[in-house]
Amino acid sequence: MTLTEGTPQASEHADLDDLTYQLDRAHVFHSWSAQAALHPLVLAGGSGCRVHDHAGRSYLDFSSQLVNLNIGHQHPKVVAAIVEQAQTLATVAPQHAVRARGEAAKRITARAPDGLNKVFFTNGGADANENAIRMARLHTGRDKVLSTYRSYHGNTGAAVVATGDWRRIPNQYARAHVHFFGPYLYRSEFWSATAEQESERALHHLRRVIEAEGPSSIAAILLETIPGTAGILMPPPGYLAGVRELASKHGIVLILDEVMAGFGRTGDWFAFDAYDVVPDLITFAKGVNSGYVPAGGVIIADHIAADFDDTVFPGGLTYSGHPLAMAAIVAALDAMEEEGIVENAATVGRDHIGPALAGLAEKHEIVGEVRGTGVFWALELVADRETREPVSGAVMARVKSELLARNLLAFTADNRIHVVPPCIVTPAEVAEAVAAYDEVLGLPDLS
Amino acid sequence: MTLTEGTPQASEHADLDDLTYQLDRAHVFHSWSAQAALHPLVLAGGSGCRVHDHAGRSYLDFSSQLVNLNIGHQHPKVVAAIVEQAQTLATVAPQHAVRARGEAAKRITARAPDGLNKVFFTNGGADANENAIRMARLHTGRDKVLSTYRSYHGNTGAAVVATGDWRRIPNQYARAHVHFFGPYLYRSEFWSATAEQESERALHHLRRVIEAEGPSSIAAILLETIPGTAGILMPPPGYLAGVRELASKHGIVLILDEVMAGFGRTGDWFAFDAYDVVPDLITFAKGVNSGYVPAGGVIIADHIAADFDDTVFPGGLTYSGHPLAMAAIVAALDAMEEEGIVENAATVGRDHIGPALAGLAEKHEIVGEVRGTGVFWALELVADRETREPVSGAVMARVKSELLARNLLAFTADNRIHVVPPCIVTPAEVAEAVAAYDEVLGLPDLS
Ligand SMILES: Cc1ncc(COP(=O)(O)O)c(C=O)c1O
Ligand SMILES: Cc1ncc(COP(=O)(O)O)c(C=O)c1O
Repeated sequence: MTLTEGTPQASEHADLDDLTYQLDRAHVFHSWSAQAALHPLVLAGGSGCRVHDHAGRSYLDFSSQLVNLNIGHQHPKVVAAIVEQAQTLATVAPQHAVRARGEAAKRITARAPDGLNKVFFTNGGADANENAIRMARLHTGRDKVLSTYRSYHGNTGAAVVATGDWRRIPNQYARAHVHFFGPYLYRSEFWSATAEQESERALHHLRRVIEAEGPSSIAAILLETIPGTAGILMPPPGYLAGVRELASKHGIVLILDEVMAGFGRTGDWFAFDAYDVVPDLITFAKGVNSGYVPAGGVIIADHIAADFDDTVFPGGLTYSGHPLAMAAIVAALDAMEEEGIVENAATVGRDHIGPALAGLAEKHEIVGEVRGTGVFWALELVADRETREPVSGAVMARVKSELLARNLLAFTADNRIHVVPPCIVTPAEVAEAVAAYDEVLGLPDLS
Repeated sequence: MTLTEGTPQASEHADLDDLTYQLDRAHVFHSWSAQAALHPLVLAGGSGCRVHDHAGRSYLDFSSQLVNLNIGHQHPKVVAAIVEQAQTLATVAPQHAVRARGEAAKRITARAPDGLNKVFFTNGGADANENAIRMARLHTGRDKVLSTYRSYHGNTGAAVVATGDWRRIPNQYARAHVHFFGPYLYRSEFWSATAEQESERALHHLRRVIEAEGPSSIAAILLETIPGTAGILMPPPGYLAGVRELASKHGIVLILDEVMAGFGRTGDWFAFDAYDVVPDLITFAKGVNSGYVPAGGVIIADHIAADFDDTVFPGGLTYSGHPLAMAAIVAALDAMEEEGIVENAATVGRDHIGPALAGLAEKHEIVGEVRGTGVFWALELVADRETREPVSGAVMARVKSELLARNLLAFTADNRIHVVPPCIVTPAEVAEAVAAYDEVLGLPDLS
C-alpha cells in the first residue's frame, strides 16, 4: 500500500483527515500529555511558513512546529538533498565515514568560535546534552551539573534532571544535579529593579551556589544561552560573561545549550554570538537542519576532544551522524547562507516583529511584557499589570484556540505566546499574524 | 554545493574517498572509541547485502551496519516512501496528527500480542528504553530497575546505567539500577551442566535478587529477549516464562528490549514470539525501519497506557513520530510482509547459516561455540576449547581485518564474530561469507 495512491477528490481529502485522526487516537501515545483529552490537529503538507491538512485548510505556522523549523516547510534544496542521499545510501553505521557527515561537521564547526573543531552527532537535543554532560564529567573527574530552574534540556535520564522546569519533578532518577536561579528581570528572584542589578545579583547567587556546593565537585554549568521554553529570557548585559568567568576560575566546563536558540533563530548563527562568551561545549539540534531528519550534536572544544584521543569516549548511538540527517544539515546550512536566511531573521525581527509586538503591548492591558530578538519573541500575558499575575490556563487555552480559528498555528507556554515563525518569515506574514494576535488579545471576554 | 554534482571519473572517485576520510578525521568525533587511532572505512552506496566505496570497491555486509539493516541496503520501496514523504511534509511536531505515524503505529501494534495497542515513538533504542523505564516507574510507584550484566540498552542517562556491560562503568550517574546474571550456559555463572539446569538456576538467582532487593521496591525487569551485543545469548527453555511469572507475582513491569532482536532478525516479528512470554512493554528501534531514518519506540500494554489517560505522561521529544521515520516504517514493514523477508531469515538461518557455522566449528579448533537463530548468530572464538579461554583482542582485530581484506564487512564483539547479515540474505551470499570465515579461521598463524 502506498500512502497517497492516486489523486483523491475533495471528500476523499476530508476522509483522509478523518482516517488520520482516528489512527492517531487509536494507536499513538503522545508526549507530555494526558492522552484522553487530546484533539490533535491533522496536518498533511506545507510550504514556507504555511501548513495544511488533507482537505486544504491552511495555517500560518508561527510555532515553527516545536521551534525547529528555521528554514520553513519543504525547502526545495533540503528536500532534494534528502532525496538524493536516500537514493544513494540511506543508512550507514557511525564507525564508517560518509561524505555528508564530514561535510556537515565542517560547516557546523566553521560557524563555531575558534578552537571548537569536532562534532559528536546525536539524534536530537536530549542526547546532545547527555553526551555534553558525559564529556564534562569525564574531563573534570567531577560529578555535579549546575543548571537553572527555568530550563528544558530534554527527556532522557540525565537531560531531564538537568531540566529545571516541572518536567524534571516526576523524573528525578539521576544524581548530582543542582539547580539555581537565572536572571529574569520581569519576575526577578533577586528583588532587582534594573537589568544591571539583575545581572549582578544573578551572578552573585550563582557564585554562592558554586561556593556552597563546592567548586571542586562541579563538572559543568549547563545553560540555554537564551532560555526558550521557559520564556525566551534574554540574558541581561554581563551575565553570560560573568558565568564564563566563574566557570573558568573553578575549572568548570561551560556547556551552552543552543538546541532551540541556535542556527538562526536569534538572527545570529549562534545565540551566544551576540554576547561576550565562548563556551567549552555547544549542544545543538532543531535549527541545524530544521528537523527535516532527526539530528543533534555536541561541538567540542579542542582541549576536551583531546582527552579522548587515546582514551575511549564512553558514549554512542546507532544513528550518530545518520547520512540522511547529515545531508539535510549540509543543504540547510548552505541554503541559509546563500539565501541570507539568518540575516532575514535579524532584520524582520528588528524592523517588524519587535515594533509590532510593542504596539500590541501598548494597546492591550493583558500584555505584561514583550521580549526577544530575531524570530524568537515572547508576549507575557498577565491578569494584572501591577502584580504581573499570569493569566490562567483557561485563558491561554482560549487564546490558542481563537488563534487557530484564525488559521494561526501559535506556540503557547504557561502564560505566554511565543512568536517563533520560521527565519524566512516575510513582513507581510508578520502583519498577518499580528492582526490575529491583535484581534484575539482584544476579545472583550478574554480574561 | 551538491554533494555529487556531475559524474566523476575513476580518479575523482578515489579522490572522493580520500576527501571523505580527511573530513571525517578532521571534524567527526566517533562513538565508543579513542579518536586518534581510528581508521574509518569510507562508504558511498549500497544495494541489498552489499556496500561500496566511491572507487567502487564492494563489501558483503554481514554486520547489517550496527545490526539494524534487516531489509538490506537501499530497498526501493523504503527509499520511495522516504522520498514521497520528504516531498510532501518532511517534518511535523509530535502533537499534531500525520497519516504515516498512525499507519506505522497500526502496523507495529498489529504484530504485537493482544492487549498492547499504543506506541510511543522515539528516535532510537536508548530513548525507547528511557521511556519504558519511566512508564514502569510511574505505573508501579517504585524505583528500582533490574537488568542483566550482559546487556546493552543505550547511551543516555538511565539507559546506560541499565546497561550491564563495560559501557555502564564510566557512566553511573543514575540511581536505583540493580544488575543480575542472566543465563549463559557456555560461560555459566551458576555451575550448570545442562540448559535445564542453567534455566532453573538463573531463575533461582533472579528470585533471590528480587527478594534481597525487596520486591515492593522494584519497578521493572528490563531484558533483551536475546541479549545481542553481549553475545546472542539464547535463553534456555523456561527462562523467559519463569521471569514473566516472577514479575507478575510481584507486580513488576516486564520490559523486553527488542531493539536488536526484533522485526525479523530472529526469523520472527519479535524474538519473544518463539518463547512463552508476553511482556508489558516492548522497546524497539533498528529493524523496524532498518535504520533508514532514526526511529525507535515503546509498545505499551493497555493497563499501563490507561494510567496516562487522565494523567500527564512526563516524557517527550521533538522528533517523536517523525514523518520520514514513520513513512520508512510503513514501507519497511509492508515490504517485509509482502516479500516474505522474515520467513527468509528463518529459513536461511535454519537451512544454511546454522549448518554452515556448525561445519566451521567442526573444522576449526578456535570455534568454541556456535549459537543463534534466523540471521542472528555468534561464533565464540577460544584459545582453548577445554578452558574456553577467549582469544585475545589482537586475534579479534586480525580476524576482522582479514575478513575485510576478503571484502567481508564483519561484526565482532569481544571474542566473537556475530554473523548478522540482512534478513534478505541468500544462500549464495551465506556461502560466500562462510568461505571467507573458513579461510580466516584456518589461517595458520592466527592464534
Ligand atoms: C533548549 C532545549 N534543549 C534541549 C531540548 C531537547 O531536544 P529534543 O526534544 O530534540 O530531545 C529542547 C527541546 O525543546 C530545547 O528546547
Ligand atoms: C538491545 C539494544 N537496546 C538498545 C540499544 C540502543 O539503541 P540506540 O543505539 O538506537 O540508542 C541497542 C543498540 O545497539 C541495543 O542493541
